[in-house]
Parts: sequence; structure tokens; C-alpha cells
Amino acid sequence: MNIATPNHDSIRAVLWQGDHLRLLDQRRLPVEETYVDCRSAEEVASAIRDLVVRGAPAIGIAAAWGVVLAAQNEPERLEAASAHLRAARPTAVNLMWALDRMAGAGTDAQALAREAQAIQDEDLAANRRMGELGAALLDADAGVLTHCNTGSLATAGYGTALGVIRAGVSSGRISRVYAGETRPWLQGARLTMWELLRDGIPATLIADSAAAHLMKSGAVQWVVVGADRIAANGDTANKIGTYQLAISARHHGVRFMVVAPFSTVDMATAGGADIEIELRAPDELLGYAGQRTVVAGAQAWNPVFDVTPAGLIDAIVTERGVVERPDAQRMAELFRRTR
Amino acid sequence: MNIATPNHDSIRAVLWQGDHLRLLDQRRLPVEETYVDCRSAEEVASAIRDLVVRGAPAIGIAAAWGVVLAAQNEPERLEAASAHLRAARPTAVNLMWALDRMAGAGTDAQALAREAQAIQDEDLAANRRMGELGAALLDADAGVLTHCNTGSLATAGYGTALGVIRAGVSSGRISRVYAGETRPWLQGARLTMWELLRDGIPATLIADSAAAHLMKSGAVQWVVVGADRIAANGDTANKIGTYQLAISARHHGVRFMVVAPFSTVDMATAGGADIEIELRAPDELLGYAGQRTVVAGAQAWNPVFDVTPAGLIDAIVTERGVVERPDAQRMAELFRRTR
Repeated sequence: MNIATPNHDSIRAVLWQGDHLRLLDQRRLPVEETYVDCRSAEEVASAIRDLVVRGAPAIGIAAAWGVVLAAQNEPERLEAASAHLRAARPTAVNLMWALDRMAGAGTDAQALAREAQAIQDEDLAANRRMGELGAALLDADAGVLTHCNTGSLATAGYGTALGVIRAGVSSGRISRVYAGETRPWLQGARLTMWELLRDGIPATLIADSAAAHLMKSGAVQWVVVGADRIAANGDTANKIGTYQLAISARHHGVRFMVVAPFSTVDMATAGGADIEIELRAPDELLGYAGQRTVVAGAQAWNPVFDVTPAGLIDAIVTERGVVERPDAQRMAELFRRTR
Repeated sequence: MNIATPNHDSIRAVLWQGDHLRLLDQRRLPVEETYVDCRSAEEVASAIRDLVVRGAPAIGIAAAWGVVLAAQNEPERLEAASAHLRAARPTAVNLMWALDRMAGAGTDAQALAREAQAIQDEDLAANRRMGELGAALLDADAGVLTHCNTGSLATAGYGTALGVIRAGVSSGRISRVYAGETRPWLQGARLTMWELLRDGIPATLIADSAAAHLMKSGAVQWVVVGADRIAANGDTANKIGTYQLAISARHHGVRFMVVAPFSTVDMATAGGADIEIELRAPDELLGYAGQRTVVAGAQAWNPVFDVTPAGLIDAIVTERGVVERPDAQRMAELFRRTR
């Protein structure tokens, strides 16, 4: 199955159309492949908040195009539109990074469009580079477990952790791919399984809570995940459940790799305790697709990210290089060496 | 809310009706409270296999009544009926234990009915005793996290781990109760939340993968779970995800309690490696609440139990006593002391 698609990379979810932004609606996958067209910054902000588009890099790219829409259609509200986009989701730093970069590109709509395109193109190139760097860390015949969706759907294309998996499958190093369901939004079940099957990468779905049992079986040698924010000391915020995987991985001697573009590193955030963790509505846990699964009146606690301390991470892979056994000093070295 | 129901114990799921067995259909909760009536051992075996009734002690009790039905209706097939019931589910040892005990009670239908009733009555009494013993281990103002459903629905009534929670809430020691969803079958979301709300115990649902993040917050001091089989060395098979919770608990200094009737202890099983882990159909992971959520053609791995090694368990609570820091020697001592 490894030859179905060259480089296993056929999917694009964020599509600029010249006067509007077309987003593959990730709420409907895999049942339907439908698109949402956004014609204003407000519509882009809503699409980010409502998870039409998700994944830290994809959110940043979509927000950049939101700024372009504001510059084209309501230039007098450019700053307000940017502020509105910034507030759409709190945890992923790529959103703030992309908006800061757009603010530095002035107010001209054409210049802003060039900047947004650059952000998108650079993200794809970064992902391909991270794929090479991350796959080089794997031994032959590796089994990998991933969490959430970090693929073409979450980025400009190719993906971060899924980019490493694409590269590892292409190069023959990876023999087994497992994906966790990723409750409550089921990004792993709904999106990663769709994306991997579409791109000809055989994968096996597991319940999030089966990860430790899988590790004990010896089937996986690496956990490979993305990141929504990496603090200056290497502490990493990512989808809820990542921290638990890191604890189980360490317990079993399974190695743990974080893959994220350098824009995810927030040197202004000292450590994980300073990262705001988004709490979403309890409803996401109380039912599915409109069908209630929990008794009426029940309460739920729904944090959608957690923080994995740097001490549980074996390698942070960015397009600027790999930081093994990350800590504040090694992260600062990467930052200085490559700025 | 703690005074809504005396002892917080109003639910019974396995009801002998004199000539048939009535089972609360746990596949339909919490959407509907409906019952399935079984009039033969074969129907009881199907109900066990199809999860109309689940939970290790409840399975044993239901199987005992299945033997009574065979003795009443087709006494010439008593042994065959028992063998059929024995094969319904492989992991929970209570099923085998109850059938062995029934075999020792002869072939007379009335004698068998007395034995089945004794098994059921003793289970309820054991649960109340375990509730006292387990709750006594808790400090004041405790927060507890439980997994799967181990309550009145899973037993003759009151529950094992949920019995400890009922007792801890009644005595005022427990201030916070959290329940994990328990994918794929959602016993925590569908059953435990229903049972606790029904019995006036406030509880908060979390995604299974949020447990480590919850522990880090300091909200829980104990994880309290049931067991499907406890080996002679204290290794414990329980619902998939239990092992992962035990690893996270140890990482955070949260204590870990297993609560199960002594019939769950299988001195003939040396250790966890000797316990058969049931693999169920991938379909349970490929959909959610009857709706397909994963792309067609996807594969899934669906082990529904795992083994928690004794070294990660702080206390095993049975009605015959508590084994702290369990190992083969301490388990054997409990066995000798109380046989």
C-alpha cells in the first residue's frame, strides 16, 4: 500500500481562492467532504472557533488569510479584524505568531496576500524538512503511535507529526502506525484515519486508554505528536491526552517526539505553567453528533489541551533543527543558532 | 445532594422472577430504561455476550440464574448449558467461579435456585463490607477518580469501587468524584454517570485521556477501580485504560485502589501474563453511539481489558480484608487467613 500516492501527500485543507478562503470542513469528515467559504475576517474567526479548521499551523495560516480578507473588503477595520482573529482560540501560539507577522507586513492588501502565501508556503516546506529530521531519529522497523491530527488537515500540507510518519513510511523505517481516537472531538478517529487511508498509509486505530497496553506489547517504539505551544524550557502544550501518553511512554522505555514548526516555540512563555489551557463546552463530552450519551443533568470537565513537561520529551523536531532532551538551555541554543 | 437517597443505593439490575431472569438492558442506558427477560440458559449466555448485563460480579450472578433456568426447563442439558455460559466471556473469573459453585450444588432446581440466591445475596453483603473497608482508607476531603462501571449495575447492588465511593460519600470523606468515559463502550459516561446521578452523588465526567491532567491539578487523591480477575500475585485485569491510570497515578503520587469480591481472586492464575485478554470487534471503535465515525476500510485494535501489575497497586480491597502493597506473599496470607 505504500506506493498508492507519491510521498503519501495528496490532501490540502486551506485553499486561498483570490477573493475568499475555502476550508475543508473538518467537523464533517469523514462522513462528508464539504467546504466552507469564508469571505470576511469574521467568518474566518468563526471557522477557527467552531473547528471548521483546526490544528495549530492551519489556524495560523487561515488567520493570515483572514487579515487579507479584511484588507481587501474593510481596510478601515484591519486592526479590529486582527484582534478578533487573535481571540478565536487561546492555546495555539501559531495564531498569535501569524497575526504578528501579518501586522509587520503593513496594510496593503497585495502585500498582505504575499505575506499570507509566504506563511503557507513556508509551513509546507517546514513540514517536509521536519519529516526528514524526525524520520532520521527512528530505527528500522519502527512502530509509532500518534495522537490527534497533525497532518495535511492541520497544516499547509504534509503535516508535523504525520509528516514524520509520512517520511518514515516513504523511507521504509516505519512498519506500524497506530492512531489514538482523541476524545472528545475524535480527531484521530475521524481525521487521522481518513488522512492516512487516503494517502495509502496502513494504520490501526486504538482507544486513547489502550495506549499503555499497546506500549507494553512492544508494538511501538516512538510516540510522535504535534504541539500547540512550546515554552522556552521545552514544556509542550498539545491535545489533551498527550501528557498521559508521555508518562506511559517513559514508563515503558518508549521514546517521545514532539514535531512542530519553529513558530510554535514561544520564547516569551517561560514554562508550561504559563500556558493557558482552553476549556471547551462540557457538551463535547456529553454526546456525539447530536446524540446524547450521558444522563441529563450530568457535569463534565473538558480541558482540550494539557502540558507535557520537557523532562518527558526525548526530542523536539523543528524545521531549524532537533533538540534532544530539551531544556531551557538547549532550546535557547537552537533559538540563538538559527535566528 | 448527599441526602437524596439513603446510602445512595436504589438500583438493581439483575432480577430473578421465579421462572425467568430480568436484566436491565445496559446497552440502552441512559437513553432508555428497558429490561430483557431471559427464559433459558442460552438467552442468559447471549445477554452476557451482548453486554445486556456486564460487570464481573453481575455476569457471575446472571450465569448462576442461567443454570437455574436450565435445571427448571431442560435438566438433561444442565452440563451443556453450564459450558455454554462459561464460554460467554473469557476474562472475568467470577463467571467461572459462579458456575463452579453452582456445579457443586447438585442438579435439583430448587437447590440450585437457593445457591444462586445465596451468590447474589452474598455479593451484595460483600459490596457493603468492601465499601466500609475501602472508604476507611481515604483521608478526609478526598477526591476520587473511577473508571468503567463498578456499581449496582455491575453487581448484585451497591457496587465494588462504586460501593467504596457510595460509602465514602455517605461518611463525608469524599468531596469530589470523577468518572472516566471508558471508551469504547462508554460504561463511565453512560452507566456510572447515570447511576451516580440517580443515587444523588454529584460526579464529573472526564475524557479518559484527561486523567493525568486531572491528577496534576491535585483534584484527586485516589483512583478507585474494580477488577475482572486478580492473579495470585495481585496483578489485576480490569477494563482497558486501568493500567494507564495506574501508571499516571504512580507518577503523581495518587494512590490506587482495586475493589473486588474475593471470588475475583484467582489463585490458579500465577500472574497477569497468564490472563486471557478479550479482544472485541473493531466496530466498537469505528463508530460512536451507533454512528460510524471512522472512514470505511479502517482497521482498529480493540482489547477491552488490560493488566495492572501489583507493583502499581496500593491496596486490594475484598470483603475478607485489605491487602496493602499486594504481592504473591501478601495475597497468599489473605487467602490462608480467611479460607
